[in-house]
Amino acid sequence: MLRLGPLVVTGRLLPVGPARGRVSLSRSRSWLSRPTGPVGDRGLFYRQVRAVAGSAGGGSRCLALKTPKGTRDHPPAHVALRDRLLAAVVACFKRHGAAAIDTPVLELRETLTGKYGEGARLIYELQDQGGELLALRYDLTVPFARYLAMNKITNMKRYHVAKVYRRDNPATTRGRYREFYQCDFDIAGQFDPMIPDAECLKIVHEILSDLQLGDFLIKVNDRRILNGVFAVCNIPESKFITTCSTVDKLDKMPWEEVRSEMVGEKGLSPEAADRIGEYVQLHGGLDLIERLLQDPKLSQNKLAKEGLGDMKLLFEYLTLFGIAGKISFDLSLARGLDYYTGVIFEAVLLQQENDHVEEPVSVGSVAGGGRYDGLVGMFDPKGRKVPCVGVSIGIERIFSILEQRVKASGEKVRTTETQVLVATPQKHLLAARLKLISELWDAGIKAEMLYKKDPKLLKQLQYCEDMGIPFAAIVGEQELTDGVVKLRDVAMRQEVDIPREKLVDEIRRRLEP
Amino acid sequence: MLRLGPLVVTGRLLPVGPARGRVSLSRSRSWLSRPTGPVGDRGLFYRQVRAVAGSAGGGSRCLALKTPKGTRDHPPAHVALRDRLLAAVVACFKRHGAAAIDTPVLELRETLTGKYGEGARLIYELQDQGGELLALRYDLTVPFARYLAMNKITNMKRYHVAKVYRRDNPATTRGRYREFYQCDFDIAGQFDPMIPDAECLKIVHEILSDLQLGDFLIKVNDRRILNGVFAVCNIPESKFITTCSTVDKLDKMPWEEVRSEMVGEKGLSPEAADRIGEYVQLHGGLDLIERLLQDPKLSQNKLAKEGLGDMKLLFEYLTLFGIAGKISFDLSLARGLDYYTGVIFEAVLLQQENDHVEEPVSVGSVAGGGRYDGLVGMFDPKGRKVPCVGVSIGIERIFSILEQRVKASGEKVRTTETQVLVATPQKHLLAARLKLISELWDAGIKAEMLYKKDPKLLKQLQYCEDMGIPFAAIVGEQELTDGVVKLRDVAMRQEVDIPREKLVDEIRRRLEP
Repeated sequence: MLRLGPLVVTGRLLPVGPARGRVSLSRSRSWLSRPTGPVGDRGLFYRQVRAVAGSAGGGSRCLALKTPKGTRDHPPAHVALRDRLLAAVVACFKRHGAAAIDTPVLELRETLTGKYGEGARLIYELQDQGGELLALRYDLTVPFARYLAMNKITNMKRYHVAKVYRRDNPATTRGRYREFYQCDFDIAGQFDPMIPDAECLKIVHEILSDLQLGDFLIKVNDRRILNGVFAVCNIPESKFITTCSTVDKLDKMPWEEVRSEMVGEKGLSPEAADRIGEYVQLHGGLDLIERLLQDPKLSQNKLAKEGLGDMKLLFEYLTLFGIAGKISFDLSLARGLDYYTGVIFEAVLLQQENDHVEEPVSVGSVAGGGRYDGLVGMFDPKGRKVPCVGVSIGIERIFSILEQRVKASGEKVRTTETQVLVATPQKHLLAARLKLISELWDAGIKAEMLYKKDPKLLKQLQYCEDMGIPFAAIVGEQELTDGVVKLRDVAMRQEVDIPREKLVDEIRRRLEP
Repeated sequence: MLRLGPLVVTGRLLPVGPARGRVSLSRSRSWLSRPTGPVGDRGLFYRQVRAVAGSAGGGSRCLALKTPKGTRDHPPAHVALRDRLLAAVVACFKRHGAAAIDTPVLELRETLTGKYGEGARLIYELQDQGGELLALRYDLTVPFARYLAMNKITNMKRYHVAKVYRRDNPATTRGRYREFYQCDFDIAGQFDPMIPDAECLKIVHEILSDLQLGDFLIKVNDRRILNGVFAVCNIPESKFITTCSTVDKLDKMPWEEVRSEMVGEKGLSPEAADRIGEYVQLHGGLDLIERLLQDPKLSQNKLAKEGLGDMKLLFEYLTLFGIAGKISFDLSLARGLDYYTGVIFEAVLLQQENDHVEEPVSVGSVAGGGRYDGLVGMFDPKGRKVPCVGVSIGIERIFSILEQRVKASGEKVRTTETQVLVATPQKHLLAARLKLISELWDAGIKAEMLYKKDPKLLKQLQYCEDMGIPFAAIVGEQELTDGVVKLRDVAMRQEVDIPREKLVDEIRRRLEP
């Protein structure tokens, strides 16, 4: 169980009771002009502050005390774990030579318009306050494309870890928040085919393996293959996108239901649906690619042949990377975003990490990406294209799993890094405590003290135990006289007197791993 | 000069020419249904993508290619430097035992209303899209107070490093952005007086000293003292706030101008202004505090006495912390935010770091904070108060200085951490390169390769020099035959053959500091 010290309460939202009616707080400026007590009265101060809430006598606040729908605070234990996770992901990105960039959370609305297809209705827009029309970024890919176009960059390998915003409905999908982290790695530039694409998949494989999330699978497909399949099945081009989104449901629905939707809702003929079914239920490896390259219909389609040729190349590279075993060429994979032009992929976890947990965590996909060769060209004034491929790691889902795991393991996660508590056992020794802690801070030692003039020794030692602080440096009257500090090993419950001038060195020595 | 490799162009905004008229991109869904070429045509793909911009033939984009006013992208060199700076600040916060929290960038509008006085007009509001009325956070203090009240926390020591949003006018003040980082450290809880307050000042002192920004000064004052001064000068309470904001300008304007504004604009009598002038031009240390405690008028004022008594205690603690030399009790310090109730402080840099630079960087204040005992009570339904004191470090201003310094020093800042470039000198060796780099990644070595099937060796070595990569691992036909890898020290221009199975160990050995 996550154990937190007395200074921190685990960040669960404690209900604060029904609002007793709304108070308009927009009168803030005027209340300060209304004198409510004698000049210089301390009470004036706090009456002024209370009056902001609009009620002079009582203290009813009537504010909805909450974070916006779909967002949440992150208490210390949460942040500590999240930072560990992000550090692991970033370490992988750096291992592959990416440089970090950052972009504003705000973008011009027109930057985001027309890039997300159906997702566009989920964009948070800023109010028109007389300036530019703005919105919150929906992902990190479009900002990257804008950045490349703005700076006329033709090749770049970058990572970007930041929050994005989508007005999703969090109630329908567990763990689906409106503000969430994305960890993106992208390679922009004209290079020899499939090499950067293969590296993106290698990165997904490395991260998911390093995090020990259990067995996983990376499905790959290609927009050109999909479009080629639809073409040889005689689907009208006007129905490509809508057919795609139905096909994509094959990971959640059986073929019969998918077929029904195609015929019943999307208006395809039953024969066309059957023809599609002959392809999109297929998945495999190099052997499947070879087979499809020989397929009499597909081999006549230029786009499909191109896609299959590249898929074969990709699998050869993935084999050299030693990861082909976890890759599945899956013709049902479609992915939502319109801007993909080539390879697309998605990583899913195959079994629950914590099979003994009562409520197994169902997490869906944990990473996804693909090639998007046309996006930068949409921003460049001359339409100059910069081919790109990239991957986005879904940190929130992975975080839920790790959180469950930590809970189940009973691991004690410290929320602070304090090494020494400076303590005094008798009264009137605050000055000695302040002097000593200042020396420790100046020497770079992580130290705390209680904010009381005369704290009890027992309380100070209890604080060490609660917070997991390994040492206490105790100065009492005797120690001051003798010029020593009593250094206490909290876990071992052992104390020894150290000469004052040797204290820092002794602490450093003991802290060495 | 900051030197960047070929993959990255320094992130200066290159103008992209005037917009040629706006294109509505909201037609995104419909264009994909319009067939524009033969089925299966590769061209269809790119015509579809180009059509989003609305012009089927040419390639005119007509998008305003920019970040929103007052915001900017952060290219790799910038991010690298910024991360170093943030790490130094966070190290100090952790040294003092703070735990990190995070809160959403979005808050309910009512959470922010009534907390910022004049600043309220600078709040970014989200459009009403049918749900809750939202805004972007303006600082990290109000979210903290909300967090404490929501979770019924009565004591906590937390830090929070994150971006905040203010619709400021960036043109008027150099370096004043609308999106910028704040690094906040706050102590919440009922403790013995001035101990946490003193620690906040110690933290400011440590950070500014560690960053070697040159000489600095931390001004301190107290809202109670200010209000007491106004009271004994017979200023009507209704004019306290407005007088405060004029007094605050004494750091930028001489007293005569400040006095004129008081009389001419704020409606104070010349006598009252003169009386104020006798106090607010004072600054000093413990001696000044003692003098004011004996002041016949001030000593009659309860609030002023309280403030002066606590100021004396504060100075005693700061002396024990060894930092009183950089602290000035300055009666002209007022600070903008309404929620301060006790001590207030502000740190300023005293002289330019780079006196030889033609354009000295004028940066104003680099940190500020104070005590705000009434804020949490504004959120708590029962008005329960949690006293708080905290400091906010102004990272952007410090960053400008460090950026100038790096430029002037000619320090080469690497934007990646790559240790080894895997290279092949002859053609048809891509497979060998992929295999070798995969081994290095799997061993945790940070490695890159060029994304070409048959790159020239010279280009690969040039890439090492440009990016500051210390080693190249070269496998050519001979090396493959001999079962070795040629490990090249790029800076020394020395190569040696290492048996393949010993390569990882040899690289690790050489990378040890």
